[in-house]
Amino acid sequence: MEKLVFWEVEYVLFMTDFKKQQLSYTSQKALNWYMVFEVFLKGTLFFPCEPDRGLVRVHELTPEKAGQLIWVRARIHTSRAKGKQCFLVLRQQQFNVQALVAVGERASKQMVKFAANINKESIVDVEAVVKKVEQTIESCSQQDVELHIERIFVVSQAEPRLPLQLEDCVRPEGEGDEVRMRARALGPRTTTSQAIFRLQSRVCQLFRDTLTNKGFVEIQTPKIISAASEGGANVFTVSYFKTSAYLAQSPQLYKQMCICADFDKVFCVGPVFRAEDSNTHRHLTEFVGLDIELAFNYHYHEVIESITDTMVQIFKGLRDKFQTEIQTVGKQYPSEPFKFLEPTLRLEYSEGVAMLREAGVEMGDEEDLSTPNEKLLGRLVKEKYDTDFYVLDKYPLAVRPFYTMPDPNDKKYSNSYDMFMRGEEILSGAQRIHDAQLLTERAMHHNIDLEKIKSYIDSFRYGAPPHGGGGIGLERVCMLYLGLHNVRQTSMFPRDPKRLTP
Amino acid sequence: MEKLVFWEVEYVLFMTDFKKQQLSYTSQKALNWYMVFEVFLKGTLFFPCEPDRGLVRVHELTPEKAGQLIWVRARIHTSRAKGKQCFLVLRQQQFNVQALVAVGERASKQMVKFAANINKESIVDVEAVVKKVEQTIESCSQQDVELHIERIFVVSQAEPRLPLQLEDCVRPEGEGDEVRMRARALGPRTTTSQAIFRLQSRVCQLFRDTLTNKGFVEIQTPKIISAASEGGANVFTVSYFKTSAYLAQSPQLYKQMCICADFDKVFCVGPVFRAEDSNTHRHLTEFVGLDIELAFNYHYHEVIESITDTMVQIFKGLRDKFQTEIQTVGKQYPSEPFKFLEPTLRLEYSEGVAMLREAGVEMGDEEDLSTPNEKLLGRLVKEKYDTDFYVLDKYPLAVRPFYTMPDPNDKKYSNSYDMFMRGEEILSGAQRIHDAQLLTERAMHHNIDLEKIKSYIDSFRYGAPPHGGGGIGLERVCMLYLGLHNVRQTSMFPRDPKRLTP
Repeated sequence: MEKLVFWEVEYVLFMTDFKKQQLSYTSQKALNWYMVFEVFLKGTLFFPCEPDRGLVRVHELTPEKAGQLIWVRARIHTSRAKGKQCFLVLRQQQFNVQALVAVGERASKQMVKFAANINKESIVDVEAVVKKVEQTIESCSQQDVELHIERIFVVSQAEPRLPLQLEDCVRPEGEGDEVRMRARALGPRTTTSQAIFRLQSRVCQLFRDTLTNKGFVEIQTPKIISAASEGGANVFTVSYFKTSAYLAQSPQLYKQMCICADFDKVFCVGPVFRAEDSNTHRHLTEFVGLDIELAFNYHYHEVIESITDTMVQIFKGLRDKFQTEIQTVGKQYPSEPFKFLEPTLRLEYSEGVAMLREAGVEMGDEEDLSTPNEKLLGRLVKEKYDTDFYVLDKYPLAVRPFYTMPDPNDKKYSNSYDMFMRGEEILSGAQRIHDAQLLTERAMHHNIDLEKIKSYIDSFRYGAPPHGGGGIGLERVCMLYLGLHNVRQTSMFPRDPKRLTP
Repeated sequence: MEKLVFWEVEYVLFMTDFKKQQLSYTSQKALNWYMVFEVFLKGTLFFPCEPDRGLVRVHELTPEKAGQLIWVRARIHTSRAKGKQCFLVLRQQQFNVQALVAVGERASKQMVKFAANINKESIVDVEAVVKKVEQTIESCSQQDVELHIERIFVVSQAEPRLPLQLEDCVRPEGEGDEVRMRARALGPRTTTSQAIFRLQSRVCQLFRDTLTNKGFVEIQTPKIISAASEGGANVFTVSYFKTSAYLAQSPQLYKQMCICADFDKVFCVGPVFRAEDSNTHRHLTEFVGLDIELAFNYHYHEVIESITDTMVQIFKGLRDKFQTEIQTVGKQYPSEPFKFLEPTLRLEYSEGVAMLREAGVEMGDEEDLSTPNEKLLGRLVKEKYDTDFYVLDKYPLAVRPFYTMPDPNDKKYSNSYDMFMRGEEILSGAQRIHDAQLLTERAMHHNIDLEKIKSYIDSFRYGAPPHGGGGIGLERVCMLYLGLHNVRQTSMFPRDPKRLTP
């Protein structure tokens, strides 16, 4: 075997007896060792020191590097042979660069043919000279340079037939959604998906960093629970050894227990499970909850301010540091930039109802908002206040859960609130009742079986500070910030009543 | 009603008809409005502006504040009446301070009696003068000052009988574990628990910050999955609408799909579920996994280095910034400080076996390590290298899962590793096979039904970079760093085969 050849090119190809080498082509021309192989990268004994070959990232390929001979590891995005030349586009995450193999001093005819035959999506290592180009390359992220390839190796070979073409993934919304979902392993390779999920990662980071700076403590709450806190509707059942259990619909009880245990301000980020048979653009059966709970000193609006300030920090962090990602997504899915005010607009529920009535909607004072009315109110608020984010405060007591603190001034209303982005709800929250006696009364009013919520009520018997909080849906925040229209686009592996894979 | 009185003391007590006021005692003496009430804190309309009363934190009570009249909100930790005086200890999270109500110019006999009768664990607001003390108060965190109370209000009244005494929670390990578990709402109020869970929060933060700085992207992986990846043992079943599903035992498949989708370096923090009927000090059925996966350039030791460096950053972050918490825990549970080396010690499995044999253990080359042997090896490594943290690399192929990359140099071994803290495993990881054909062969060798892992194998058909990773158990890291002996102490709401509540 041509073992020395591999040494020379700094790769070690291990001939193990369980793995057949696939060496499809070897040129004899010095320095042009191009071949297809399934790489077991170097083992310690074979490679006593790190190769002095640094890999350059595609986004680092700028005119300043012109003339340099560099190594890049990337995927073959497209390839087009044309006579004695082969044009490749090499892709690395959301960045890509044009590359050229041309017959000449450094490459043989066979090498061009070999390069042209590498399956799309294969991962290759190329050694190439960076060249400045005269005419801007519109189709690539690196528009001012191209690579003139001198050596090319296949690190990992893709199969010739892909389950979908990457082009299908970058079609406008609606078209091809199903195909995209079926091949998630390919889907997130698109520049749009790379941008969406990097931005999502940043949302989590901004959420946590802002709260940590405010003195919040991160907690971990259990997802397997023994009782469904709100009576057992819409809850998934788990078989648990010889008994059965449930998947938590919210970490609320545990957040509240931490407040009762003097953690003062807590947050958690984790999966939330809803067994709702809702097949809409904004419902998932499993989503990521960004949850907040805090004790307050004098007024539950301290809680609202903590949450809205956190949201504003997220919006600003994205606006100021993630323009590349926002614009990448905008190319495929155009939308208006997300607008917000400082301080955040807070409207009372009754004001919202008045605005809707003025727009011709008929509804009662204590009636809940329908989804279309939420959307409409979002548009009215945008027109009047020029913001895509606002708080609707003081919901009717009748439409909120039993643990919601009533408004002490008007018992028709409550100390509870929803928050909206582009007219869709992203958070629901409230001041919670921290008094066991009042909580018992309100549970009885809602005909809830006291036996089932005994441990919840008992949590407030040993001194509980006044507190409130809320839960934010991560996927919705990302969808609405980017102006997308389906929450499945901001969930890498979405779960809905009909989708359990991949 | 004495409404004006409440105005004067800056509290508004709302008389709503669903809530009976509990006003047990009112003195007529000016400024001494001490009373028990269940507070609905001020509503907007009643309190047009924020009170100019700032609340001072207990840990801020230092001799510099001597002579100042301040407000504090805290719990009554202990109370002891003695003639015309009542000594209280006020507690706020892990900090506490001595306070005194004495009959005199600012307090009546009735007020002292009232203060003495407030139930322990109630939350109170006190207005008091900070006084420097001559003799250090050993029993409190604030040892140089005490508070001379002038006004006291009950914000939230605890019931007279607590489910356990807080003193029972601070007993040495072993004693009273069950009681502690039963009353988690009280348990985490102890200074030890406050310290443990604040430290745990910091571990997560250090983990994420270190990886984010290294260019890792945080991902969210689904917990409800359609198939059990490793054949279906030890997996919880969920009823999912008209079908059934499973709870993910690891995010590994999803991490790997992200690597195949060019995210390059990913991490996730989230619950991991194991339906193992293991009732030991170190097993939980639900724990928090800190998971890492990354593509590497030349050698899987790049992965080991990424992980060990992250662990070292965690250890250093705790050592340098969390001494207060570490020492607080140490008071109740004494242990040796945690030791680690830079760079981290890496031993090969065969070296570990040799050390064990030298110590008299009889075992085969390809035999897995038993838990006692892991512990013993940890002690031998500590003696020889003076470290509580090390990597055991190159496990026998036979004892690792089918997706583990074989060692190309010796097919008895594999490119896989475990990491240990104080002789207990905290991470298991490996280079993963990124070639569909080799993966198929290895699965067949393990007699795994290929149909069940088809989508897993298919993930590697479209170009997959060489990669590896591992999963760390958060609760174990915290337990072992602090030298504790039961993982239930570092899980706020532990789940085991016999425990589903709270």
